[in-house]
Amino acid sequence: MNRLKRYLPILQWAPGYGRDQATSDLVAALIVTVMLIPQSLAYALLAGLPAQVGLYASILPLAIYAVFGTSRTLSVGPVAVASLMTAAALAPIAEAGTDAYVAGAVLLAVMSGLMLTLMGVLKLGFLANFLSHPVISGFITASGLVIAASQLKHLLGIEASGHNLVDILLSLARNLAHTNLHTLAIGTGALLFLLWARRYLKPWLMALGMGARLADILTKTAPILSVLVTTWVAWAFGLAQAGVRLVGQVPSGLPSLTLPPLEPGLWSQLAVGALLISVVGFVESVSVGQTLAAKRRQRIDPDQELIGLGTANLGAGLSGGMPVTGGFSRSVVNFDAGAETPAAGAFTAVGIALATVFVTPAIAYLPKATLAATIIVAVVSLIDLPALVRTWRYSKADFGAMLATILLTLLHSVEAGIIAGVALSIGLFLYRTSRPHCAVVGRVPGTEHFRNVLRHQVELCPKVTFLRVDESLYFANARFLEETVLDLVNRERELRDLVLVCPAVNLIDASALESLEAINERLKDAGVRLHLSEVKGPVMDRLRDTELLAHLSGRVFLSTFEAWQALTERQPALARTA
Amino acid sequence: MNRLKRYLPILQWAPGYGRDQATSDLVAALIVTVMLIPQSLAYALLAGLPAQVGLYASILPLAIYAVFGTSRTLSVGPVAVASLMTAAALAPIAEAGTDAYVAGAVLLAVMSGLMLTLMGVLKLGFLANFLSHPVISGFITASGLVIAASQLKHLLGIEASGHNLVDILLSLARNLAHTNLHTLAIGTGALLFLLWARRYLKPWLMALGMGARLADILTKTAPILSVLVTTWVAWAFGLAQAGVRLVGQVPSGLPSLTLPPLEPGLWSQLAVGALLISVVGFVESVSVGQTLAAKRRQRIDPDQELIGLGTANLGAGLSGGMPVTGGFSRSVVNFDAGAETPAAGAFTAVGIALATVFVTPAIAYLPKATLAATIIVAVVSLIDLPALVRTWRYSKADFGAMLATILLTLLHSVEAGIIAGVALSIGLFLYRTSRPHCAVVGRVPGTEHFRNVLRHQVELCPKVTFLRVDESLYFANARFLEETVLDLVNRERELRDLVLVCPAVNLIDASALESLEAINERLKDAGVRLHLSEVKGPVMDRLRDTELLAHLSGRVFLSTFEAWQALTERQPALARTA
Repeated sequence: MNRLKRYLPILQWAPGYGRDQATSDLVAALIVTVMLIPQSLAYALLAGLPAQVGLYASILPLAIYAVFGTSRTLSVGPVAVASLMTAAALAPIAEAGTDAYVAGAVLLAVMSGLMLTLMGVLKLGFLANFLSHPVISGFITASGLVIAASQLKHLLGIEASGHNLVDILLSLARNLAHTNLHTLAIGTGALLFLLWARRYLKPWLMALGMGARLADILTKTAPILSVLVTTWVAWAFGLAQAGVRLVGQVPSGLPSLTLPPLEPGLWSQLAVGALLISVVGFVESVSVGQTLAAKRRQRIDPDQELIGLGTANLGAGLSGGMPVTGGFSRSVVNFDAGAETPAAGAFTAVGIALATVFVTPAIAYLPKATLAATIIVAVVSLIDLPALVRTWRYSKADFGAMLATILLTLLHSVEAGIIAGVALSIGLFLYRTSRPHCAVVGRVPGTEHFRNVLRHQVELCPKVTFLRVDESLYFANARFLEETVLDLVNRERELRDLVLVCPAVNLIDASALESLEAINERLKDAGVRLHLSEVKGPVMDRLRDTELLAHLSGRVFLSTFEAWQALTERQPALARTA
Repeated sequence: MNRLKRYLPILQWAPGYGRDQATSDLVAALIVTVMLIPQSLAYALLAGLPAQVGLYASILPLAIYAVFGTSRTLSVGPVAVASLMTAAALAPIAEAGTDAYVAGAVLLAVMSGLMLTLMGVLKLGFLANFLSHPVISGFITASGLVIAASQLKHLLGIEASGHNLVDILLSLARNLAHTNLHTLAIGTGALLFLLWARRYLKPWLMALGMGARLADILTKTAPILSVLVTTWVAWAFGLAQAGVRLVGQVPSGLPSLTLPPLEPGLWSQLAVGALLISVVGFVESVSVGQTLAAKRRQRIDPDQELIGLGTANLGAGLSGGMPVTGGFSRSVVNFDAGAETPAAGAFTAVGIALATVFVTPAIAYLPKATLAATIIVAVVSLIDLPALVRTWRYSKADFGAMLATILLTLLHSVEAGIIAGVALSIGLFLYRTSRPHCAVVGRVPGTEHFRNVLRHQVELCPKVTFLRVDESLYFANARFLEETVLDLVNRERELRDLVLVCPAVNLIDASALESLEAINERLKDAGVRLHLSEVKGPVMDRLRDTELLAHLSGRVFLSTFEAWQALTERQPALARTA
């Protein structure tokens, strides 16, 4: 039963589900539905897909996540960055808007669903750790810029193409002369209204005497208001005749079951794209989920979250939708509106389903410029330039990985950006740990403590050197240790005993073991004995049966002071000043 | 001047070079020359190249290494593994033995030379650290097996092809019926003699009253003896007519300057191969050089070694040779024969040059089967099966990386083997450190020491938890730390203060900093204060100006005991048994 509860988190809350929770969840669902309709349409547009694909991705996935997901308040659906990545992955295989393109989006959702579910079942959630914070943060900032640029064409009513900032801007510049002024008016009108609403609507409503919570919720519905107004304007004034692009006829009714195309060639072409969408979506989703869960001292289970997101994506793909993930802004709205259980997500699914059936005829008159304005306002909040400054000040290496991610995403493609970022952050970490901090230590006079000779006034012995290593020993730094020790032995001609002091060594891998054996042999050749001190329990357990201990020329001491007593007793200890 | 000496190590020893050193070096050079002639021919054969290419690679590179190299006794030239990798890299671009194939080998040497020199100038020697010991060891064992299998065709006098064990063995099986018995007799004769000599020649000579050192040196010349005898047999009995394949006419005289082909397509096709040859060759070379240098308390400089090997390879390529690196067996011979300075290498170059001019006519009658026997005997010593057992016993993870390298090298290709090994060992390391050891610690009663509650009888306080983290905090484990802390807070409902005890944290990267900030915020939401204790100096220096310290809900304590005193003073300390 517990096992079942782990894989079906719905069993943890559904049995005790009561009227009060249902009321809270219904209110939250209503608010999220109103917010999600324009978002779903907009992100379909961003991904180059027909508007209804966004709606389809906001029905079944939400219902499935309510069954398999562990976050009480996460709201899944199409999000900006995943939509951009979808467009980038599909660009090489088909023209945006074609049937093959839509089939590709469906396949991406299914592949992403399979990958995430498999990772969840195999408990491979740790793979997401390879995306470091600076890389994710840089990637999202750069994606936000690319997304905003890609929507300018809809605001201007012109054609433009490209999947990186340079291509998009060049393409825009070429067609700028064809700008449609009606479209521009609608688009900038919506944009200005949304920007104003984001900043001033809540204080204004509160100044009118409205309660803070209600004012907050109404503010969040500004996008649907801009959709309603511009749709009415486009319909009433016949703006289609003036060249304003509208969403157009959307098939009314619920999606039907679709199977993804089964061409192996297509699967392998989309594999990298699907993997990146999966991992980036998962990382974002988990971080939103954890933030919200912590506020109520709840927990989410990352491996089960993989299954929740995976099955949600499978549901998206099989019902003709696009890849989905947990969205930040809508989850916060869901949380703030009082959602208590994942049932709120299921109710939202019902809301979107009703909208899909009854509201789609009206969507035909919605100007694309309005959706573009919605997207631009949403992604502006993704762009986090202060994070660049913070990272630069804290760590130049992390900043390097971040900058590489940003530049490659802006100038080449989202896929190149994220892959380069991951490779660089792994490389930089290995580089940093490849030169571990090593310090020759001496005895603090009259005590059992040993400190760095360069920083403290300590006792030393010319024939015995104590070398403290402040890092786990593994393949990337094993050779450096060999060099450090051999340099030391080469410098200190009087040396007879070398003690490696290991309190910060948490791991000795097979490469480091070989290096220690080599050090032992080489020191033996040079007439110097090698000793170890303060080896941690788990590390010592593994060393016990090895050649190293069998052939160690010196001894293993529990404490450094014990080594000091045993090795220096007949020799005068010289005081040396720091 | 010191800077010049760093880049031109010859200036360190040449000015004081005297008659005694010259005598020692000349003797060593003579012995190495005799050993190197059959090896050069054999490794050219192994690489699918004409015999003279091996000789050319043993002239200029040795002279150049004497100028730029830092090892006193390393002997460079063609080696078995690099020759196999050369053949593997060239296989897709041309048929073995053709002009395009030879041009490809020359280009590989030049590219490898440029890469190594550049890595040396940029001090990128640490990149070689990415090759862990188990991966290198597994790769060399597997390469030894593939090389031995690839030479069976010469022993049998049949045709065979392929660059992995399966292809080679299948190809051999198909043509087994065409075995040439004369060839087989010559080949197995040479093989048995060499195996006998390796094991019994030295004791036999010593039993005859010869000194140990001379017996040792004579044993090392067994290959040249087998070459002389079988060449004479092939010439005297006209074995060519019996279908025994001979080396054939070799152009006499010194190589002339050759420029590599300048086709960008070819360069990019060979780039991965050249990089792998460079890195593997460098790792092998440095480890041989360090082993020998340590015996005389000398030092080699790995970054300058890159320049030494790089310029040697440039020299190889520009004089029509193949990629070279420091060879283990010949360097040991050079060392044992008493070489004192790199001049021994330069003298060897003169020896090989003389041989190239005067001995090449005789080489025409040398059976290829003899060279194949030489190669097989040489590579058998590369196969280190006990290392598999040792690695299995020490670390299953390292064994996994080793096994993957071996299997892919045997079953697919050398390039796939080494790339998979590197990727897997990096992945495994990140995985291991992604779940750092964390322990809740309590106070050892009456002391200032804190120990793991699971292992020791310690005092605890229900409202304050001390969590010790035994690993540097970075992107791969940042999320795990968040999860660990949130789980803990979720379990301990009474908790009011959490102290992170950090004596083994050597690094906090930007990702971990963000995680700590997130932990701080989430704990604040949950009504728990976050404190730090025993933060190392360098780590604290970086944290000083960060948001984390600015917004930390708790304090930073120098020692854990100080935190204990400050946080638990008014609460009863409960004794708990392990």
